[in-house]
Amino acid sequence: MTVRDCIFCEIVAGQVPSIKIYENDSVLAFMDVGPISEGHTLVIPKRHFEKLDECPAEILSDISIVLGRVAKAVSQVMASDGYNVLCNNGRAAGQLVEHVHFHIIPRKKDDGVFSKWPSFEYEQGRAEEIAGKICAKL
Amino acid sequence: MTVRDCIFCEIVAGQVPSIKIYENDSVLAFMDVGPISEGHTLVIPKRHFEKLDECPAEILSDISIVLGRVAKAVSQVMASDGYNVLCNNGRAAGQLVEHVHFHIIPRKKDDGVFSKWPSFEYEQGRAEEIAGKICAKL
Repeated sequence: MTVRDCIFCEIVAGQVPSIKIYENDSVLAFMDVGPISEGHTLVIPKRHFEKLDECPAEILSDISIVLGRVAKAVSQVMASDGYNVLCNNGRAAGQLVEHVHFHIIPRKKDDGVFSKWPSFEYEQGRAEEIAGKICAKL
Repeated sequence: MTVRDCIFCEIVAGQVPSIKIYENDSVLAFMDVGPISEGHTLVIPKRHFEKLDECPAEILSDISIVLGRVAKAVSQVMASDGYNVLCNNGRAAGQLVEHVHFHIIPRKKDDGVFSKWPSFEYEQGRAEEIAGKICAKL
């Protein structure tokens, strides 16, 4: 994928405007233009990777450190009661821009965002079976 | 907070059982007992920190590298169409256990999970105003 095909690569390259929060050699943080709440910020690697699991370890490390710093600042400024850090990977998971990005979403008590949490219980032995398969892939 | 007060510290200490996926010196990954989808995994630091922004940089780095590895394995095993990586910070954001944890949630196309994404648009100048305040805190 070239810069031309990716809006976030264009933002990194300065070809599309953004409201920047922070940047260093490898990571950029900027305001989400379609926020869920005020202060909603995106943190991305400057290099193009589609999904989290495709990022090299050093890039993940760089992103995570910026996430911590920016989340703290965003929380303080928005006087939030909490925040979500969310990375959607794949269209099925809600990823609209195919350049890995972490959302920092400030939250207020009872704001009604992400209120649905449809958990279930495994049948006997099923979790262990899946875990065994995952372990075998690591 | 002592181990006695935190279920995840108890899991780390082996005082409460869990289905482990992976562990190293600083990070543990295990199956969520109340999953949103099959293969739903949690990744936590072994040391107790309540929120992401309270974790030292080296811990965030360690977590992020495990997230990448485990997300890849979970996706492969579940043959998912995507996955969410989600860290809820604070009760208002849906954090139920006050020991920082990242959810890896495998997703299937049209599974209906997290389908609500209530975004809005900023009024003129508001995003720049907030960004300026966040930058001043960094």
